[in-house]
Amino acid sequence: MTNIKRIGILTGGGDCPGLNAVIRAVVRCAVGRYHIECLGVLDSFDGLIEGPAIIPLSWHRTKGLLFQGGTILGSTNRGDPFAYKVRVGEQIVEEDRSEAVMANVEKLELDGLIIIGGDGTMAIANKFWQRKRLKLVGVPKTIDNDIWGTDETFGFHSAVEIATDAIDRLQTTATSHHRVMILETMGRNAGWIALHAGLASGADVILIPEIPFSLGAVVAKIMERSSRGSRSTIICVSEGAAPIGGKQVTRELVPDSAEPVRLGGIAERLCRELKGRIQTECRYTVLGHIQRGGIPTGYDRILCTRMGTAAVHAFVEGQFGKMVALRKNEIEMIPITEIAGKNRFVDTGNDLIRAARDTGVYFGDE
Amino acid sequence: MTNIKRIGILTGGGDCPGLNAVIRAVVRCAVGRYHIECLGVLDSFDGLIEGPAIIPLSWHRTKGLLFQGGTILGSTNRGDPFAYKVRVGEQIVEEDRSEAVMANVEKLELDGLIIIGGDGTMAIANKFWQRKRLKLVGVPKTIDNDIWGTDETFGFHSAVEIATDAIDRLQTTATSHHRVMILETMGRNAGWIALHAGLASGADVILIPEIPFSLGAVVAKIMERSSRGSRSTIICVSEGAAPIGGKQVTRELVPDSAEPVRLGGIAERLCRELKGRIQTECRYTVLGHIQRGGIPTGYDRILCTRMGTAAVHAFVEGQFGKMVALRKNEIEMIPITEIAGKNRFVDTGNDLIRAARDTGVYFGDE
Amino acid sequence: MTNIKRIGILTGGGDCPGLNAVIRAVVRCAVGRYHIECLGVLDSFDGLIEGPAIIPLSWHRTKGLLFQGGTILGSTNRGDPFAYKVRVGEQIVEEDRSEAVMANVEKLELDGLIIIGGDGTMAIANKFWQRKRLKLVGVPKTIDNDIWGTDETFGFHSAVEIATDAIDRLQTTATSHHRVMILETMGRNAGWIALHAGLASGADVILIPEIPFSLGAVVAKIMERSSRGSRSTIICVSEGAAPIGGKQVTRELVPDSAEPVRLGGIAERLCRELKGRIQTECRYTVLGHIQRGGIPTGYDRILCTRMGTAAVHAFVEGQFGKMVALRKNEIEMIPITEIAGKNRFVDTGNDLIRAARDTGVYFGDE
Amino acid sequence: MTNIKRIGILTGGGDCPGLNAVIRAVVRCAVGRYHIECLGVLDSFDGLIEGPAIIPLSWHRTKGLLFQGGTILGSTNRGDPFAYKVRVGEQIVEEDRSEAVMANVEKLELDGLIIIGGDGTMAIANKFWQRKRLKLVGVPKTIDNDIWGTDETFGFHSAVEIATDAIDRLQTTATSHHRVMILETMGRNAGWIALHAGLASGADVILIPEIPFSLGAVVAKIMERSSRGSRSTIICVSEGAAPIGGKQVTRELVPDSAEPVRLGGIAERLCRELKGRIQTECRYTVLGHIQRGGIPTGYDRILCTRMGTAAVHAFVEGQFGKMVALRKNEIEMIPITEIAGKNRFVDTGNDLIRAARDTGVYFGDE
Repeated sequence: MTNIKRIGILTGGGDCPGLNAVIRAVVRCAVGRYHIECLGVLDSFDGLIEGPAIIPLSWHRTKGLLFQGGTILGSTNRGDPFAYKVRVGEQIVEEDRSEAVMANVEKLELDGLIIIGGDGTMAIANKFWQRKRLKLVGVPKTIDNDIWGTDETFGFHSAVEIATDAIDRLQTTATSHHRVMILETMGRNAGWIALHAGLASGADVILIPEIPFSLGAVVAKIMERSSRGSRSTIICVSEGAAPIGGKQVTRELVPDSAEPVRLGGIAERLCRELKGRIQTECRYTVLGHIQRGGIPTGYDRILCTRMGTAAVHAFVEGQFGKMVALRKNEIEMIPITEIAGKNRFVDTGNDLIRAARDTGVYFGDE
Repeated sequence: MTNIKRIGILTGGGDCPGLNAVIRAVVRCAVGRYHIECLGVLDSFDGLIEGPAIIPLSWHRTKGLLFQGGTILGSTNRGDPFAYKVRVGEQIVEEDRSEAVMANVEKLELDGLIIIGGDGTMAIANKFWQRKRLKLVGVPKTIDNDIWGTDETFGFHSAVEIATDAIDRLQTTATSHHRVMILETMGRNAGWIALHAGLASGADVILIPEIPFSLGAVVAKIMERSSRGSRSTIICVSEGAAPIGGKQVTRELVPDSAEPVRLGGIAERLCRELKGRIQTECRYTVLGHIQRGGIPTGYDRILCTRMGTAAVHAFVEGQFGKMVALRKNEIEMIPITEIAGKNRFVDTGNDLIRAARDTGVYFGDE
Repeated sequence: MTNIKRIGILTGGGDCPGLNAVIRAVVRCAVGRYHIECLGVLDSFDGLIEGPAIIPLSWHRTKGLLFQGGTILGSTNRGDPFAYKVRVGEQIVEEDRSEAVMANVEKLELDGLIIIGGDGTMAIANKFWQRKRLKLVGVPKTIDNDIWGTDETFGFHSAVEIATDAIDRLQTTATSHHRVMILETMGRNAGWIALHAGLASGADVILIPEIPFSLGAVVAKIMERSSRGSRSTIICVSEGAAPIGGKQVTRELVPDSAEPVRLGGIAERLCRELKGRIQTECRYTVLGHIQRGGIPTGYDRILCTRMGTAAVHAFVEGQFGKMVALRKNEIEMIPITEIAGKNRFVDTGNDLIRAARDTGVYFGDE
Repeated sequence: MTNIKRIGILTGGGDCPGLNAVIRAVVRCAVGRYHIECLGVLDSFDGLIEGPAIIPLSWHRTKGLLFQGGTILGSTNRGDPFAYKVRVGEQIVEEDRSEAVMANVEKLELDGLIIIGGDGTMAIANKFWQRKRLKLVGVPKTIDNDIWGTDETFGFHSAVEIATDAIDRLQTTATSHHRVMILETMGRNAGWIALHAGLASGADVILIPEIPFSLGAVVAKIMERSSRGSRSTIICVSEGAAPIGGKQVTRELVPDSAEPVRLGGIAERLCRELKGRIQTECRYTVLGHIQRGGIPTGYDRILCTRMGTAAVHAFVEGQFGKMVALRKNEIEMIPITEIAGKNRFVDTGNDLIRAARDTGVYFGDE
């Protein structure tokens, strides 16, 4: 049916609900439809630099993967094979190990790779395609939903449901106990999770990177709500949100031997700023990695299955150097080159923003 | 801003997650954006025939509606005002009470209605628009997702998640205990829920109305799976699925004074048919109303908010006789006349069916 | 530390959330605490009759078992080794194969068995202990919570949460749509699930085997509620509930070549009986196997861990022929002989029944 | 039946799943069983100092309260009426306003109060009973489960399920991505939530206030695990856990105009300490208020119903100055005086700790 005999599959970057569901779809489609053998590469490109470290992926091995969080292939933080982190004595230096990857691809007799990863991983994939002509097809992965070129990425909706559920819980406390409650979601560059979860859970204020906010205006909003009898205000804030003219808060630890000191994230900062200015008590929660892990929703499992099978078809058709994308609910293939270095941001005129404003959500910008 | 002063809102047909979230969006947008007063009509059109039975819907009254299942406006089964069921002595007869509706609309000084309902309710709405020029805008509602003209209806994805969760649970039993497990979902005309939930949960066989199945082929499939070492088979069947050349099983009680007898639904029938032909034990579950009720998912709450606010904008713009629709993830308005008497079926060549087949799902048709 | 070298573990009977969590606890405690080797016996006693069919259970193998529904050891329906079902030609006959079990225990050099199962499995265990002096310790398993001698069994609370969640969903439909909604839970002999789930979800009527009900009284209750303005009534009924003087409805298929006919379960029967007598529409749902499968709650995972480790300690202490029990929230060991042939029923004077009546629940008995 | 005519109900302290379920049980039992009128006091004792601020609580008003998080009666932070915070000019001073409470109790013709609250609220209740002979019955409330005299408090198991679910999600990330993941639960004085959730979710290390830990030992444990091939370590830490000889980390903001600086909580501190000493990346999440809010589990709703009805019975029987307690799964009444100033700690020799150690959990203490 096709002269492709064997492909490798790898997952790169941080955790995301649905990684295993994509692996399952790729393997089942490749094995069942095209009789292509599948090898799983362990720990992203590391498995093709050290080793090789691979596991066979049979149809039988895919059992239960739809429901299983994480990735059975593991991931890495040593990063880009073109600038691979290597320890030399006491130091960490970067070396180009891309040829080791190519050598192992040849040694394993792989016809190419299906690469599941975020924008960092896609940038690496792009280099392998552009410079080395490694045959590859990408599947976009991020809970942040900010990969350019695709309307949706798997894992995003799972993250939104988790954040929505968290705000639902905060709502009862806020209402019963006269509180301002702040929930910080992930989203360093783009505010998709905060926008969706805030809208879904009835947050009163949503702060996202795409709409710089005025702290004074947020304070005024809380006071206005209070004066109209609202006992509480729920704020859903994206980790990358920043005040007008200000810059993003970096959640970095300050090296300080004397005292345990740090710069907090935006939720903490917001909470501190509000404390001096409003009467109502304020509490914040940073959802963190809880929104990255666990079982994907049914919605995401379907998207994973669509994307995983589409990747195999594209590979068989020879559409190398391309990434699966969902556009207007249709699967399309787009050149990975096109997406490099770009993010997909919330269009502040889009109909979600409009629907949010129509139902009383405040973005801190007026 | 607009010369519209007061509108009525009603909900018709069966329960569906998100009805209250639509009501919330309509009220908040109407009151907050356009200063339009909102009246909730109780028990669908009944509230404009008897009574009138209405409740004021202020911004404050919408608190908590995002999370609340059911509809605070109630619904009815007396049905079409043009053929309204009335008890006359011992008999139920049908009378045209549409003028009572018009009279109450006038008496309440309503500028029109926003009508949230399924195809039955939209057919009634169409008559009021065509024959009486009652100003109205529709919002499509069905967990079955089979309303013509819109890619998605709210409540559908909530139902899919519930059914997916149910099959997840059956999976563990099937695998551990050598079983054929059958789950029957709703979907009398269209197989959307069964297709989505079956695909999401890794069902081995999916049977939907759009693809008539061969019982013999299903039996053969189970045996083939068994011979290859699979201890279990999961079948997800739509309530309206039917064998090739056969007809739908009607879940009707047989009036029988002597013995408690009935014709079962498709899951029960399938289970009985399989029992004689395969060794493996077979069990079935009919999800029933569990998939219609309760808290909507975050996804659906967003869709409800988009559709509810869009209905208000359309009303203000004078787009009467139209229904909100979602097409390629954009909100559009379509004439209600166009959708009457049609259903949106699963396109058997669509990419979900393809992805399902690619990952080994069997539709009983080969 | 102990002269026990190797034990076998098996799971018998139907599915139950937490089986794998018990296996995990047994293996970790045996291996980690006592350096005892663990062998998993496949498909209950079948694995010691055919075969032997066993898998090694290392500490590493227990990874992820806390969350995994079902049992990795499988179960069976061929049943009692003392009356083992064997096919001879066209017939199924029963043979005593208990000596095959003893022979394989010896061959595998097992010091004994830890047996996880329900009352049927415990009855078999009792025979092996009484007649063959096979060293064994039992862990009670049933979602029905009706094993004599223990206040709680693992899986029960998980089943209650599932049923509670289901009734929560039915509540919204019942309230919005003027309905009588009936949910049938498992519980053939004892009404624990129906009582707990009904009480937890605010059911208006709870029917359990321990309290025979009067249909006329239930009808009167619904009418009284209706006359006081309640739009809906929720009935939670145990599969084994029966009318006063009547007998349990057996959910058996009637062999009937002409027409697909059957005797329904209690929920269906109740629904039919009510239809003739009340105005309100009535719907029923049978939860079925959904309440047996899937991920156990945190509560049950803890109980599984307590019981599994207790079984190992008891084995090491030589407390053979005993079963782990939970009494007044303390772990105790009780002779398996004592529990044989008994069920633990709901004490109709207990404080849950009292709390239920105090909050308005009706049991159909007054 | 009783000469009690009217009682007041109030809720004090922080949010806790099940507050409304207790209110429901109290009202239904008081109204339905004893024809006692119920008044809800708003915002804890504040409602009897200012105002009075009360709402009538009829049977009908209890509809839906089983599922509703938070408390419809509100709570406060102005605290103890014997040392009530009052603003005088620029200052907040404390005044004894207990007589205002007594006066309003008389004015409202209340026969007494049912007080739902934590140890702080119970201490106030104790003063009212000891000093003023105000007739009252207490219902213990805390997600921390550390109220002396009762084996369980409602809300605790709901909090455990939330924390368990959170760790389940972190597990997938930890395993796939070679991480040390830390989850901080509530529990300033007692480690119940961390112990239960850690045990339920398979945490590798659990740190609680009752068992001071050695940081060096934790580091050694992580390294030992790593050397045996474990890619990840999950640490579940109680907010009040502290190193041996050290003291609790206070999560206080440091007032610092120059820079946004603070002392972090124990999870953050632990993460920072580990960073310098181990290779593996480390991430932490502080669950915070998410574990206090939202819908209670079925288990807790039943406990709320038992406790709420028991409080009414006790009141009718004249058992004033007592609190409802659950001991060995039986409801008992204990004098509030006995519990004042005490906490119920984890007994480090109890069978949960033992079961945890038996399955490999490390408490940092060896």
